[in-house]
Amino acid sequence: MSQPTKIATNDKFQLFTKHWSPKIVGYFNDNQIQVVKIKGEFVWHDHEDDELFIVVKGHLTIQFRDQNLEADPGEMILIPKKVEHCPKVDEEVWIILMDKQGTVNTGKVQSDKTAAAYERI
Amino acid sequence: MSQPTKIATNDKFQLFTKHWSPKIVGYFNDNQIQVVKIKGEFVWHDHEDDELFIVVKGHLTIQFRDQNLEADPGEMILIPKKVEHCPKVDEEVWIILMDKQGTVNTGKVQSDKTAAAYERI
Repeated sequence: MSQPTKIATNDKFQLFTKHWSPKIVGYFNDNQIQVVKIKGEFVWHDHEDDELFIVVKGHLTIQFRDQNLEADPGEMILIPKKVEHCPKVDEEVWIILMDKQGTVNTGKVQSDKTAAAYERI
Repeated sequence: MSQPTKIATNDKFQLFTKHWSPKIVGYFNDNQIQVVKIKGEFVWHDHEDDELFIVVKGHLTIQFRDQNLEADPGEMILIPKKVEHCPKVDEEVWIILMDKQGTVNTGKVQSDKTAAAYERI
């Protein structure tokens, strides 16, 4: 049986600086819990499952084909499966990201931002 | 197709005061995202699926049969399925709680803290 675990998310953000490089900090009902730092514009993509962005620091904008959504710390953005999206932020943003285990950050799109294997920290 | 949604979690906590009364704010890959305020001791119980406590405010202690885990804002506690647990806090704690859709807060245990139907806010 797995053990209960405390995950000190805030500490995890101190362990890396690279943007668009999700780090896995745990698994939860077949979802992967990640911490990620982003800056600039990502690539347009979608996923086969839902994705949840929880903002820890900074101001997050996610572009959708028909609107933008913005969120600050204490807020989250829920992206249903198969909805195309593209994060875009001027200043660095820290995010707790949850999506289905095995999800790749750029979906089926190949990009220099594609993170092939996620590091566990 | 579902629409992308911003969930202003911090605002949701302003909408209620009752303890041990989870409010659903969204669904994510068959999980229910809840906000809940707790104070005092809960009841010992377990669940058929994993459960995730994200601390927003206050100091959280969760008792397990062989240890206690404690967490502050910026930290989370991951409880694997079927692991018995019982939160206990002296002062009010605000939590974002995620578990499988349809999960009941006290598991199979009936208690005056059992929340039969979760309100959506």
